[in-house]
Amino acid sequence: MPRARIHVIPTSAPDDVSGLQQLIATGALDPTCLRAILGKTEGNGCVNDFTRAFAVSALKMCLGPAAENVTMVMSGGTEGGLSPHLVTFEVLEEEGTGPALALGATITRDLLPHEIGTFAQITCVAEAVRSAIQTAGIATTSDVHFVQIKCPLLTSARIATSPKATQTRDTLKSMGLSRGASALGIALALGEVDAATAERALAEEDKSVWSRRASTSAGVELMGHEVLVLGMSPAWSGPLLVDHAVMMDAIDTASVRAAMARMDVGRSSVLRALFAKAEASSGGLIRGARHTMLNDSDISSTRHARAMVGGALGGLVGRADLYVSGGAEHQGPDGGGPVALIAERTGFYGDTE
Amino acid sequence: MPRARIHVIPTSAPDDVSGLQQLIATGALDPTCLRAILGKTEGNGCVNDFTRAFAVSALKMCLGPAAENVTMVMSGGTEGGLSPHLVTFEVLEEEGTGPALALGATITRDLLPHEIGTFAQITCVAEAVRSAIQTAGIATTSDVHFVQIKCPLLTSARIATSPKATQTRDTLKSMGLSRGASALGIALALGEVDAATAERALAEEDKSVWSRRASTSAGVELMGHEVLVLGMSPAWSGPLLVDHAVMMDAIDTASVRAAMARMDVGRSSVLRALFAKAEASSGGLIRGARHTMLNDSDISSTRHARAMVGGALGGLVGRADLYVSGGAEHQGPDGGGPVALIAERTGFYGDTE
Amino acid sequence: MPRARIHVIPTSAPDDVSGLQQLIATGALDPTCLRAILGKTEGNGCVNDFTRAFAVSALKMCLGPAAENVTMVMSGGTEGGLSPHLVTFEVLEEEGTGPALALGATITRDLLPHEIGTFAQITCVAEAVRSAIQTAGIATTSDVHFVQIKCPLLTSARIATSPKATQTRDTLKSMGLSRGASALGIALALGEVDAATAERALAEEDKSVWSRRASTSAGVELMGHEVLVLGMSPAWSGPLLVDHAVMMDAIDTASVRAAMARMDVGRSSVLRALFAKAEASSGGLIRGARHTMLNDSDISSTRHARAMVGGALGGLVGRADLYVSGGAEHQGPDGGGPVALIAERTGFYGDTE
Amino acid sequence: MPRARIHVIPTSAPDDVSGLQQLIATGALDPTCLRAILGKTEGNGCVNDFTRAFAVSALKMCLGPAAENVTMVMSGGTEGGLSPHLVTFEVLEEEGTGPALALGATITRDLLPHEIGTFAQITCVAEAVRSAIQTAGIATTSDVHFVQIKCPLLTSARIATSPKATQTRDTLKSMGLSRGASALGIALALGEVDAATAERALAEEDKSVWSRRASTSAGVELMGHEVLVLGMSPAWSGPLLVDHAVMMDAIDTASVRAAMARMDVGRSSVLRALFAKAEASSGGLIRGARHTMLNDSDISSTRHARAMVGGALGGLVGRADLYVSGGAEHQGPDGGGPVALIAERTGFYGDTE
Repeated sequence: MPRARIHVIPTSAPDDVSGLQQLIATGALDPTCLRAILGKTEGNGCVNDFTRAFAVSALKMCLGPAAENVTMVMSGGTEGGLSPHLVTFEVLEEEGTGPALALGATITRDLLPHEIGTFAQITCVAEAVRSAIQTAGIATTSDVHFVQIKCPLLTSARIATSPKATQTRDTLKSMGLSRGASALGIALALGEVDAATAERALAEEDKSVWSRRASTSAGVELMGHEVLVLGMSPAWSGPLLVDHAVMMDAIDTASVRAAMARMDVGRSSVLRALFAKAEASSGGLIRGARHTMLNDSDISSTRHARAMVGGALGGLVGRADLYVSGGAEHQGPDGGGPVALIAERTGFYGDTE
Repeated sequence: MPRARIHVIPTSAPDDVSGLQQLIATGALDPTCLRAILGKTEGNGCVNDFTRAFAVSALKMCLGPAAENVTMVMSGGTEGGLSPHLVTFEVLEEEGTGPALALGATITRDLLPHEIGTFAQITCVAEAVRSAIQTAGIATTSDVHFVQIKCPLLTSARIATSPKATQTRDTLKSMGLSRGASALGIALALGEVDAATAERALAEEDKSVWSRRASTSAGVELMGHEVLVLGMSPAWSGPLLVDHAVMMDAIDTASVRAAMARMDVGRSSVLRALFAKAEASSGGLIRGARHTMLNDSDISSTRHARAMVGGALGGLVGRADLYVSGGAEHQGPDGGGPVALIAERTGFYGDTE
Repeated sequence: MPRARIHVIPTSAPDDVSGLQQLIATGALDPTCLRAILGKTEGNGCVNDFTRAFAVSALKMCLGPAAENVTMVMSGGTEGGLSPHLVTFEVLEEEGTGPALALGATITRDLLPHEIGTFAQITCVAEAVRSAIQTAGIATTSDVHFVQIKCPLLTSARIATSPKATQTRDTLKSMGLSRGASALGIALALGEVDAATAERALAEEDKSVWSRRASTSAGVELMGHEVLVLGMSPAWSGPLLVDHAVMMDAIDTASVRAAMARMDVGRSSVLRALFAKAEASSGGLIRGARHTMLNDSDISSTRHARAMVGGALGGLVGRADLYVSGGAEHQGPDGGGPVALIAERTGFYGDTE
Repeated sequence: MPRARIHVIPTSAPDDVSGLQQLIATGALDPTCLRAILGKTEGNGCVNDFTRAFAVSALKMCLGPAAENVTMVMSGGTEGGLSPHLVTFEVLEEEGTGPALALGATITRDLLPHEIGTFAQITCVAEAVRSAIQTAGIATTSDVHFVQIKCPLLTSARIATSPKATQTRDTLKSMGLSRGASALGIALALGEVDAATAERALAEEDKSVWSRRASTSAGVELMGHEVLVLGMSPAWSGPLLVDHAVMMDAIDTASVRAAMARMDVGRSSVLRALFAKAEASSGGLIRGARHTMLNDSDISSTRHARAMVGGALGGLVGRADLYVSGGAEHQGPDGGGPVALIAERTGFYGDTE
């Protein structure tokens, strides 16, 4: 019976793999069981953030051939007091009883440049998400709590050599389009929207259409998609639980508190990891009060948003090593975002871990 | 019997006084009763933040001669989702019963440049704080919950023309020294430290010595100090209450939640305004997790800290128009800071306001 | 006979008018003769740069009623070593012989919000430029060397209340559209392009169509245009000369050196003031070498461009109080920009001034 | 007879080694002959600039064991229009006649943490520079034109574990101390200052004592020093020449123009590479005009200085792939810096290369 195991590993620099190495050396982490690594790195999280690639380069060197099966998604930007760290996901085999945290990963075919930001991307992603859900042995889409996708973007070279016209010639804008199409693909696979609505929302940039469980980020290093699905499954064992919340704005901690209550965090379980999306509300307001994120030409709005949401969540859960990621097109409502929580039942193995 | 009245006024730009003008026009605010205006403006809150002076310039033009009696402290920096706003403090005369929010303001003599950052500044401030407490009619120092001070700094010209050597030749550093000495002066007046300890802590930059109720900021436009004291007094009337908390780190919301509980916020009272200090912990950690604020050469640590604490407090109280100010030398513990809260008892005048 | 007089006045802060006041006090500057003030202020030159408005506010307070006839254009951003300063333009009456620097100023009607960035703006500006040329007594358009325009932009409120659809709903983008349309209006008035080409270039954002003498900047405080034309005229007297160059890229100092040679700078004349436009080349290259201005999410490309061009021109002319302004849509070639130079003939009045 | 060869290789990202690989693949560059690589990377050039380490990591992976003998100094920051690139230095064996560019490299012993920023570092560096000069076969110190040193810095861990007190507990400040001591070590070795003066200048931070040929940068990855000396030697052959200039301020292009004239650049030689140091003048002035670099809390002064000097030099030499490095303690006068130029004699091998 599969069992998911995670480690939250602090890093002292983007290329710091000493924590990972130590876990491997002590046997606490088995690289051959690794399926995914999500991480926060301390760059600006924007176009010229090289800390993500530096981290991936160091992780690949550290893991060697074992890296090939590992989905790696680095999110740049530890504004406010967010703490750089890695979260590793392993799949072990172990006798036990479910339900427990289940995970599935897959990749898609490469998109053609002109497909980025189109309905073709939505359907491509939706298919992969359905496949990953099946792989994970998650019975129904309502048991899915988090879908992380790494998606492609357009570069000047890709635009120049594309035989068909691309959706945009602006490389930065292509990141948003790709993240948005991927999020809508997730929403489609989870039954949150129908195909026609997803297609229209993408075309019209309709912010009122969104997924409750999508988290997507664009990277230059791939033309396909890497997909990681987290959910609950009776076919999986172990002490880990996953649930999710949707923050309706940057300071909506009540939604997350409710999820923690459902998981009985602080009583029969402890919070192990948290993944959230953050963005500045496009209307320029938070509960009626003007914010200045979108008019600030010194600091990108995504940096402001991560800091604010990192503070709100840090104030709630009492820790700063949180995965708060910017750029939340069709991921939660305008100015808000989905949050996934992983908790561990205490005393699961008859003793305190 | 004096009664304090406050208004929280959103602004659309540093020089936006339209909200203030409207309150004056409708009679809701009487400029002749104004004693202080505290505000957040949307600059960087650092050396080249001209939004503070621009705001003060606009307020003075708006108020005319009435401005002379008004202590104005603008705090730059609305990082994260903090919302630019003004908080006005008036003193009215009204029959009623105490205790209620009391306020007292005073100014000190001008310092000589070489006194900035020395024990002379500590004693000068302490004396003024004691005087303001007396003016406010606050019976004991334990009823004081917030002391806001605007203090001087060194400029190149002041350093050059000083007959005696100044404590530093670094103008930025002089801001920290002046804020720190002012905070220790408050601590001395409130009986939080003795004179010898205050003097030693200033000299040694001993971060373990701090005030629970001080909030100080340095400005180029004065050589003395403007002092505003808030506390509870039986000699004052009205629906307003004040209390304070000390955040032990940037995500310590529990301390503020406790203060809100003491004030019965959400039941018999509503929160009207909040004033907090924020800073990056010098050890580089928040609850054991590394933050990157002090190594970021793109964004000043004070900006990160305001965003983080603004998020933590916003997530707790559910609003973003909070006065969160950076630079907390000897104001709360290393990495934390004092928080003052003003609440209003509902139904005070027999009806819902 | 009219004579133009200029002063280059250093400032110590955006609201520093002490230099101007001193010139007025000593009689060296007559506020009733003032026609225009151009200035560099030390903000970021982008959306949230309040130093421009702060400077204008201080200048208006200083000048009083005399300010009404004065075109004021503040350009934010003194990156690199650029030095904050003001350049005042007065028109005196004096016997003498031409030709010499001539200047003319005018204003246009207010645009309707939906006209910003359209052909209607082009023609509106072109008409005003022609009028200002005539006012200045400049005989032919080839004697015009610099046209500075302050043009309107769209705000959220203007977009919301416009009965007709505006060209864009993006306020930042409206600045570029307005600057570009104004520049094309100048080009049309100067005979640099025909109306059909100007209209097409605006619609298609064709960067190959540009003026050699336009300098435009957008401001929130007006809906019309303020126009300042500088040229040579036989009807004007005095020691001042004006000429212009077009930098073909950010380091094209040869073009400016040639203009200085034409004015005999360093021999029979001295350079008094310089006005330049700067921008990052859209292709990402300077003479074949990749620049990183357009991928930098920490520093706006306009800030990089001003610093680079300020260095190139400072290295050429040996001074740092230069008016280098960003955002050069249709003002000079892609990545380059127009430069205007004012020199003063030495010994004009029989002695050294 | 040794011959120095250089390549200037543009890069498309910090970890882009494709240009280097191509030169190796075509035989134009022999990795076994490589002695040094200097490069500009597109980070912020300050504390949290990870592009330098990322570049070094990629270069080491690319070069494999050959990397061991190669001094690598990456300088972060391509502000303005500076172009990211690498300059490789090889030493070949070839018959010919001198004099020509000679180079020598060496390393020093590791410093103890408490030695950083002390006279011990000065003497350690001076000895190594003398040794490198000898290795290079440069006859007299007056034939040395450029000494590049990579020096250590203090980290929190090094400070904490040092048995003796370190010069500072501020890691950023230790970078400046180490750069300054290294520069004074170079000055001592080159006979520019005597030992007593060097020691005093370091202790007193006396900016009037400086080297005309030093370029130093601090890096976390070493505790010793890597030293690269460039000069002219009759014992070396080949078409390359080296000379130097000292910019007296950020816009002093005349000094560099004079050096180019001495090398006959543009006639019998072409400029191949340029290395310069840049910094903001501590007095806040450039030729009497106020700059705002030191008061800018959004952009570090080193970034402004690189952009300004990059513009000045780019405007002079007509290219943007220049090595302009910030932080010039005791390297050239206050606000200025040394510049080294490498030119290639045309037709040296009887044909145009």
